[in-house]
Amino acid sequence: MPERFVHPVNVTWGDCDPARIAYTARLPYFALDAINAWWEAHLDGDGWFQMEIDRNVGTPFVSMAMEFRSPVTPRHTLMCETFPTRLGEKSISFAVNGSQDGTLCFEGRFTCVFTIADKFKSQPVPADFRAMIEPHIRAE
Amino acid sequence: MPERFVHPVNVTWGDCDPARIAYTARLPYFALDAINAWWEAHLDGDGWFQMEIDRNVGTPFVSMAMEFRSPVTPRHTLMCETFPTRLGEKSISFAVNGSQDGTLCFEGRFTCVFTIADKFKSQPVPADFRAMIEPHIRAE
Amino acid sequence: MPERFVHPVNVTWGDCDPARIAYTARLPYFALDAINAWWEAHLDGDGWFQMEIDRNVGTPFVSMAMEFRSPVTPRHTLMCETFPTRLGEKSISFAVNGSQDGTLCFEGRFTCVFTIADKFKSQPVPADFRAMIEPHIRAE
Amino acid sequence: MPERFVHPVNVTWGDCDPARIAYTARLPYFALDAINAWWEAHLDGDGWFQMEIDRNVGTPFVSMAMEFRSPVTPRHTLMCETFPTRLGEKSISFAVNGSQDGTLCFEGRFTCVFTIADKFKSQPVPADFRAMIEPHIRAE
Repeated sequence: MPERFVHPVNVTWGDCDPARIAYTARLPYFALDAINAWWEAHLDGDGWFQMEIDRNVGTPFVSMAMEFRSPVTPRHTLMCETFPTRLGEKSISFAVNGSQDGTLCFEGRFTCVFTIADKFKSQPVPADFRAMIEPHIRAE
Repeated sequence: MPERFVHPVNVTWGDCDPARIAYTARLPYFALDAINAWWEAHLDGDGWFQMEIDRNVGTPFVSMAMEFRSPVTPRHTLMCETFPTRLGEKSISFAVNGSQDGTLCFEGRFTCVFTIADKFKSQPVPADFRAMIEPHIRAE
Repeated sequence: MPERFVHPVNVTWGDCDPARIAYTARLPYFALDAINAWWEAHLDGDGWFQMEIDRNVGTPFVSMAMEFRSPVTPRHTLMCETFPTRLGEKSISFAVNGSQDGTLCFEGRFTCVFTIADKFKSQPVPADFRAMIEPHIRAE
Repeated sequence: MPERFVHPVNVTWGDCDPARIAYTARLPYFALDAINAWWEAHLDGDGWFQMEIDRNVGTPFVSMAMEFRSPVTPRHTLMCETFPTRLGEKSISFAVNGSQDGTLCFEGRFTCVFTIADKFKSQPVPADFRAMIEPHIRAE
């Protein structure tokens, strides 16, 4: 069974709005940072930048859905548990569940398609990516 | 029948990532700007800032869902058609559909709950808000 | 004498921090938006994106300096008066002075160098740029 | 002699513009994150959020100046060396020098004033702050 991957985010003053909680539009940023960090952790340090430029593999998003359960604040580190939930022929889905001090703050679901980056054309999941990803897939 | 409300966004260099399209996490920002602009247009110029501070009405988000149909670029103004789709006892849902040069780029669905802002406690939709909003509700 | 160029920014809830004023790090964003808008207004609609990709001219920043005079809030449109203050052999300097409701909020000074974009190599100010820019130069 | 304080920033795809380097307006964000982290490291974990809300001490910025020496990319961690350079009667100045892989990328200088946060009124540097800060002051 794969280890849980958790990306920590230090939420600060600048992330907050006048209600003293993280501004809603910051939360997709945090979730995408977590997905990028998941790639870095599982692909020899390569995130989207290196995937695109060095490996010519893009993974643009086709959908995102987030449920906001509890406000995110600077009081605790935001722990973003991140894992792939499904690997299709040409796509990958991720869950990113953010919590602070043991309280679930948001649940996010994201789907990306694989592309040949310099052609912005979809492609099947490359074989080396598939081999790396499959052991990490978990049900939501 | 209410007029269509369209919020224009000038997408620029700084919104784009190395793939030369707007970074995915910018798109929820644009959509939230459009919802804030909808309030400004229908509430005597008041957006979330004035609603919270002058009217003591908060509308925190409980969910967001976006489908990304086509990349957003600086080549054309991003036209965000924005309208409420449902008004519940204590909540409001919005659609934000972004298009460029006639091509649909994303469809977003958002739900917010009404709160007494200084108590961060939910409340029914205030009567003056309900009266203003209802004529603008449209099916998705 | 050239007309004054003023770029309006609609400051909103999401730009503000818990002190209910625009977060400091947003102000350079606004100023850069104003400089990009200056290019768009004077270069047939082309901002940095089109300059880089269509004209192969980059203008990376080498310095920025901002003095913050008064807080920026969502209460009034932020009016960013923007103009070139100096055109060197290979560089351009801009002033961006932001005000709200007649009160000066910040003064910014920025210097960029011209590059051949696809080589990331500096170049003299292209002749057509020089001809366009010179009439707009004003003392600080 | 005080230890050097270095705040690491993981620069990613989403921070970059189409020139494949961090967008200029992101760099003040990184520098401010570093200053906030300096406070957290020296004030029992309290950053601007806790300073403002728990201690009623604000430190709004009155000036920023940055020199950009070399592009910032996702290739290496951005190491932001951060230290106070001057403590006045009512103000503090910081240096933030960002480097990647041993190359200096930017030098930033920032000045903040101390305020009574809930009154947005300037105040002398509180005594406990002064005692903590003084040993860390270094010449630029």
